Amino acid sequence: MSTNINTLGEFGLIERITKPFALKHAQSLKGPGDDAAVIDSGNVLTLVSTELLLEGIHFDLTYTPLVHLGYKTIVAGISDIYAMNGTPKQVTISIGVSARFAVEQIEEIYKGVKIACDKYNVDLVGGDTSASLTGLTLGVTAIGEVAKDKIVYRSGAKNNDLICVTGDLGSAYLGLKLLDREKRVLDGVQNPEPQFEGYEYLLQRQLKPEAQRLAVEAMADSDIRPTAMIDLSDGLGSDLLQICKASKMGARIYLNRLPIAKESFKLAEELNIDPVVAALNGGEDYELLFTVPLHRQNDLAGIPGTEIIGHMVPESKGCALITPDGQEIAITAPGWGTETE
Amino acid sequence: MSTNINTLGEFGLIERITKPFALKHAQSLKGPGDDAAVIDSGNVLTLVSTELLLEGIHFDLTYTPLVHLGYKTIVAGISDIYAMNGTPKQVTISIGVSARFAVEQIEEIYKGVKIACDKYNVDLVGGDTSASLTGLTLGVTAIGEVAKDKIVYRSGAKNNDLICVTGDLGSAYLGLKLLDREKRVLDGVQNPEPQFEGYEYLLQRQLKPEAQRLAVEAMADSDIRPTAMIDLSDGLGSDLLQICKASKMGARIYLNRLPIAKESFKLAEELNIDPVVAALNGGEDYELLFTVPLHRQNDLAGIPGTEIIGHMVPESKGCALITPDGQEIAITAPGWGTETE
Repeated sequence: MSTNINTLGEFGLIERITKPFALKHAQSLKGPGDDAAVIDSGNVLTLVSTELLLEGIHFDLTYTPLVHLGYKTIVAGISDIYAMNGTPKQVTISIGVSARFAVEQIEEIYKGVKIACDKYNVDLVGGDTSASLTGLTLGVTAIGEVAKDKIVYRSGAKNNDLICVTGDLGSAYLGLKLLDREKRVLDGVQNPEPQFEGYEYLLQRQLKPEAQRLAVEAMADSDIRPTAMIDLSDGLGSDLLQICKASKMGARIYLNRLPIAKESFKLAEELNIDPVVAALNGGEDYELLFTVPLHRQNDLAGIPGTEIIGHMVPESKGCALITPDGQEIAITAPGWGTETE
Repeated sequence: MSTNINTLGEFGLIERITKPFALKHAQSLKGPGDDAAVIDSGNVLTLVSTELLLEGIHFDLTYTPLVHLGYKTIVAGISDIYAMNGTPKQVTISIGVSARFAVEQIEEIYKGVKIACDKYNVDLVGGDTSASLTGLTLGVTAIGEVAKDKIVYRSGAKNNDLICVTGDLGSAYLGLKLLDREKRVLDGVQNPEPQFEGYEYLLQRQLKPEAQRLAVEAMADSDIRPTAMIDLSDGLGSDLLQICKASKMGARIYLNRLPIAKESFKLAEELNIDPVVAALNGGEDYELLFTVPLHRQNDLAGIPGTEIIGHMVPESKGCALITPDGQEIAITAPGWGTETE
């Protein structure tokens, strides 16, 4: 028996391999399937999330500054803690690195780790350092906490809840496409001078993304507790499906409500990419996707950069994008190893 | 400036890259440099440890059954929790896997993960699944807890404390050497039939090691709290140096007290390897190395499989192995990317 991973996709695979596991400890409140594991520590809940960043899949050392890579690794880890409405407190970093790396290069990575740790007020508390034969490997574990009455799972969205996103979508993906283009164009060129003018924002979104600390803090200040939340690491379509599945709901989002940066529109046209497809499938934006009850609509004005893009519907109606002319386009799950995972 | 990693070694590298980090949160009790991070969760201490297992460095898929690999990944993670005198409660598993893997192969890995989770009574609570271009990558984060008055760091060893180990040393390394030999001998042979007879114990130690739960539980029953403890993943020499460094002490261990299995002696002779070198530098035994005050010597009889191999001395005397004829051999730190890391 040999089943190709592609037939299941990433989420189908996770579901299949984790199904035989039942939780044994009363303190283990949440098993695999949310942004972070949730452990009852008595007074508060402890959140633990873990991510791998692999050379060739998550980053290309041709154009990724090592200091940014260290920074992004921390952001990728703590973003999951914010997505549970928590506060990250500690991180561990594991690194597998070949002997061809110089100590100074590893220090560059950790310089970025430190800048992110300082900015987001988290402690580096451990890790693992290993030789690698197979490219640079980074692992991050983020540990955070949240009050018991503040935690937000993916599973709490209710009918008619508003669907909101922070920031803009697809820009990290378009930044990657720009880097890929310049890499191809300049392949073999001596003293290459890549053309990035006007697109600095997209590069920053790809190479040095931020986690949504301000949005989570603003929601706490406005006493808004989302009914469901997830971080946008896989792409709006895929991540919305996760909320729908966990909440046993459907969703309608509106194409002309999707926040897309003007730089994204411009580069998408230049590269002949549909900017809406970039927003839906691009991933790595590290923005937050969340739902709030309809009656909190007016309070959302206090959450910086937040847009309402749609609303939840009963599960039977499925998950769809509505175009300006009223067409419904079904949102479906991505496959395995799509380029932005 | 380009400094080769080998000039620092693994521990020198860790020290250098983590030095700029200061702890910001009062709850972060212990930063990098022990078996696990220690976080004050109010009533108890939360322990978090993380490990990477990389294809070609930590395992060779030619001869590693996937079910054992999953089992060993859990053991590598929770062994660090026991080494803090704690109880592992949860684990997360991250996996980077190429599309050439079939779903059934990944299920084999998770079958081993489940057997280990059931045996050691830990919950799988999360993880990350990703495509990989660069070989199979496994990451494990183990989460555990320990009462505040029971935690054991590497740093508490005192002068005259007894140095103890559980189990036997070097057998995992010799198991690896046996597998390597059969791989070389049978390279290109159709229907290879490797010769492992009489060495099943060594194979099991390499492919399916155990964590030292029983020793930790027996010490608790006997009311023994070690003054310092570490798990033997890097090799007795290297791990003893860690205790000495953290405790600002020296050590004397006695060659003829080192517990070495009879199968190890036999295979070492066959392969022309010094079994003492295997015990000192081999690594991956996942036994515990710990120190206890001299006056607890008689109580150690209640800890199954524990041997006293030496005692702590003042830092100025350094760390040495004493041969039966009274020679002192200095114990030194290993380099980078030694084969058993």
